[in-house]
Amino acid sequence: MTNTRQMAWAYLSRVVEGPNAYLQEALAAGHDVEKVAHGIKNREAWLDPALLKATESRFSWDTAQRDLDIIAKLGGRLISTDDPEWPVEELDHAFGFAASGMSDHVRTYQDDALPPHALWVNGGNLRELSAQSVTLVGTRAISKYGTEVTAMFTQQLVAHQWTIVSGGALGVDTVAHTEALRSQGCTIAVAACGLDRSYPAHNRELFDHISGSNRGVMVSEYPPGTTPQRHRFLTRNRLVAALSQGTVVVEAAWRSGALNTLSWCEGLGRVAMAVPGPVTTAGSLGCHERIRNGSAQMVTSGDDVRSLLGAVGALDVQEQYEISFAASPIQGLSRNELRVFDALDEAGRGRDASRIASDAGLTVALTVHVLLDLHKRGIVSREGTVWMRNKENF
Amino acid sequence: MTNTRQMAWAYLSRVVEGPNAYLQEALAAGHDVEKVAHGIKNREAWLDPALLKATESRFSWDTAQRDLDIIAKLGGRLISTDDPEWPVEELDHAFGFAASGMSDHVRTYQDDALPPHALWVNGGNLRELSAQSVTLVGTRAISKYGTEVTAMFTQQLVAHQWTIVSGGALGVDTVAHTEALRSQGCTIAVAACGLDRSYPAHNRELFDHISGSNRGVMVSEYPPGTTPQRHRFLTRNRLVAALSQGTVVVEAAWRSGALNTLSWCEGLGRVAMAVPGPVTTAGSLGCHERIRNGSAQMVTSGDDVRSLLGAVGALDVQEQYEISFAASPIQGLSRNELRVFDALDEAGRGRDASRIASDAGLTVALTVHVLLDLHKRGIVSREGTVWMRNKENF
Repeated sequence: MTNTRQMAWAYLSRVVEGPNAYLQEALAAGHDVEKVAHGIKNREAWLDPALLKATESRFSWDTAQRDLDIIAKLGGRLISTDDPEWPVEELDHAFGFAASGMSDHVRTYQDDALPPHALWVNGGNLRELSAQSVTLVGTRAISKYGTEVTAMFTQQLVAHQWTIVSGGALGVDTVAHTEALRSQGCTIAVAACGLDRSYPAHNRELFDHISGSNRGVMVSEYPPGTTPQRHRFLTRNRLVAALSQGTVVVEAAWRSGALNTLSWCEGLGRVAMAVPGPVTTAGSLGCHERIRNGSAQMVTSGDDVRSLLGAVGALDVQEQYEISFAASPIQGLSRNELRVFDALDEAGRGRDASRIASDAGLTVALTVHVLLDLHKRGIVSREGTVWMRNKENF
Repeated sequence: MTNTRQMAWAYLSRVVEGPNAYLQEALAAGHDVEKVAHGIKNREAWLDPALLKATESRFSWDTAQRDLDIIAKLGGRLISTDDPEWPVEELDHAFGFAASGMSDHVRTYQDDALPPHALWVNGGNLRELSAQSVTLVGTRAISKYGTEVTAMFTQQLVAHQWTIVSGGALGVDTVAHTEALRSQGCTIAVAACGLDRSYPAHNRELFDHISGSNRGVMVSEYPPGTTPQRHRFLTRNRLVAALSQGTVVVEAAWRSGALNTLSWCEGLGRVAMAVPGPVTTAGSLGCHERIRNGSAQMVTSGDDVRSLLGAVGALDVQEQYEISFAASPIQGLSRNELRVFDALDEAGRGRDASRIASDAGLTVALTVHVLLDLHKRGIVSREGTVWMRNKENF
C-alpha cells in the first residue's frame, strides 16, 4: 500500500468519527479512498452534502502522519478494506445481517449499524484471530461466581482453539482476557478509546500483554488520543459482538452494559447466549431475563457454546456440499435455500424478509442468512429492505 | 355414604394396587362400586377377564374394615369419586390430557397414566387445598443454594395463597412442606406408602404436623400397611404433579427423581418449570437440561410461577366470557376454540391432535386442552387418539 493511501485512511478515521453511512456509500460507489479524503478536505461539491456536513467541524484536522507515527511507535498499525488482515467475513456477515433491518435494536441504533471504515490494531493478525472466536462479556461488579464461570468458559473454549473477544473492562472482561492468555489461548480486546490510552488504567499491564503477543490483539475504531466517552462505549459494543461468531453474557444484573453488547449480537445475526446463575442474588438477573424472553440461548459450559456455534458451521458445510453438485444455480440450491427462493415473488417484485420467512416457514434470522448468501451468489437482489429474484432466475 | 359402599372402595384399594384401566372402565361403564367389588371377590364372569386376572393374587385380601379402622384411628379417611372432597377438576384435567396420548413420557408409563380410584387422606380438605396449588420438588441431596431457593419460592407462593404440593422426601420436599407451614401457608404431601407409615422416618414429626392441621393434608393411593417401594415412588410421582396446576423443579442434578415428576407434569398437560442455578456445580444440571430442551420453562421467583400459572387461568376466564354470549354452540366458541374446531375434518373423519394443532396454528398442549373442553360440552368426540366433530355440528 502506498503511504498516501494509508494517509487517506488515517485522515478519514480522524475526521469521520465512528461509522458513517455517507462515507461508506461514497466508497461503495467505487470512489477511491484518496479521492474521497481529498474531496472532504477541500469541500468538493461532488460529495454528498450530508458527508460534507458530517465533516464540517473536523475536516481541517489533518493529523494523519502524526497518528500513523504514534501507532507505529506503539508497535501497531492502521488497517482498512485495503488490507488482507481486514476481518472481511466477520464484518460482512454481521453488518450484512444488520442491513436487513430485522432487529429492533438495530433500528434504534441505526447510525451505528455499519462496519468501521478503518481499525487501529496492535498485536497479532486480527483476521486470523477472529476467524474462530466467541465474545465473553459481563458485569464490571463481578461476583465470586462470575469469576469462576468466566474462567471456566474461557478455559473450555481456549482448549478448543477459540479466541476470546471482549471489551477490556474491569470484571468479566478482564477475567476473560487474562484467563485466555494464562491458558495459552488467544484474545481480542476492543477499546473505546485510542490505543495510546489505557482505559481502565488498572488494565494497562494487561493491554500491554495482549498487544505484545501474537496470540492477542488490541483493536480500536478511534485514532490515537481519542478519550473514552460513554457514547463511544455504546458504539464500540457493536464491534465486540461483530468480531466473533457469538456472544455469551456470563454475569449481568438488570441494567448491565453487557446486555447492550448482547443486543448487538442479536441485531448482527450472531448467536446470542447467556449463562444462568443463582436466583437468590441479583447478579444473573440480566442473563435470566434474556433467556426467558428468548433473545439469548442458555449455555452452561464451553461445550454448549461450541455446539451452538458449531451447528451454524455444520449447516454451511452441508449447504456447500449440496451446491457442489449443482447443474444450474437454482437446481443447486439446498432445501432451505429453495424454500427461501420459492417464497420470493415469481415476477420479481420485492418482498420483505419477514413475509419471505413466513412463507418459507423458516425463522427470520435464518431467512436473512440465506438471502445474504443467495445475494452473494447473484441469485437474488436487495433494494432497501425488500428482496427479489434476479431476472435470469424468474 | 353407606358403610358398605365405603367398604367396597376400601376393598378395591387393597386388591387393585395403583391405577387399573380395567377397573376404571368397569366403573366408567356405570357399574356400581359395590357390584364391581362383589364381582371381583366372587370371581364373577361378567367382569373383564383382564380385571379378574389383575386381581387373582389379592382378591381374597378383604381387609376393608381393618383398613378403615386404622385410617379413622389416625384421624383420616378414605375418599373416592363418591365424595365432594374428591379433587375432580385436578384429576380430570390432568388425566384427560394424558389420555390424549401426546407425551412420550405418558406413552412409556401408560399403565400409570390413570387417576387413582380412591385416596387415603389425613388432614384438611384435599379438593379445597389443591384448588390453587403448585408442586415444588427437587433433590434429596439439597445444597445451601437449594435450601434458600426452596424457602424463597415457598414464601413467595404462600404469600399469595398458593398451596405447596410435594412428596415428603428429604431435601427440597422437606424444606417446601416445612416452610409452607412455618409461613402459615397450606401444603399437601403425597406419600408412596400407607399413611400409618412414615417414610422417611426422619419426617414423622413433619407428617404429623401436616395431617394435624387444616392447612395441610397427607395423601396416599395405598392402603394402611403398604410399604414404600421403588415402583410406588414412580407411580406416586404422577399424583404429586396431577394435584397442582404446575410443577417447579427447584434443584436437581442429572438423574434426580424430581425430573420424573416434571415429566409427569408435562405429560399431564400442566405447566412444567425449573429454577436455574450455578453452572459451576452439578446441583442444577437437571434443571438446566429441561430448560434448554424446552420441556420446562425457566422461573426465577414465585412471581414468575404465578404469572405462568395465572396466564392459564386468565385464558379460561376469557373463553368463558366469550361463551356466555353464545347463540349456538359453534357461534359461542372463542377464537382459539374456533381455530381448533375449524381444523377438524368437515365430514366428521378423525384427525389426531398434532395434525389439528398444526392446522389451527396452536401448540399441541393448548389444542388438546381446547379439545377436552369441547368434548365436555358435547361439540367434539374422541375415538382413541383421533378427534372429530359431533354429527350435529358438521
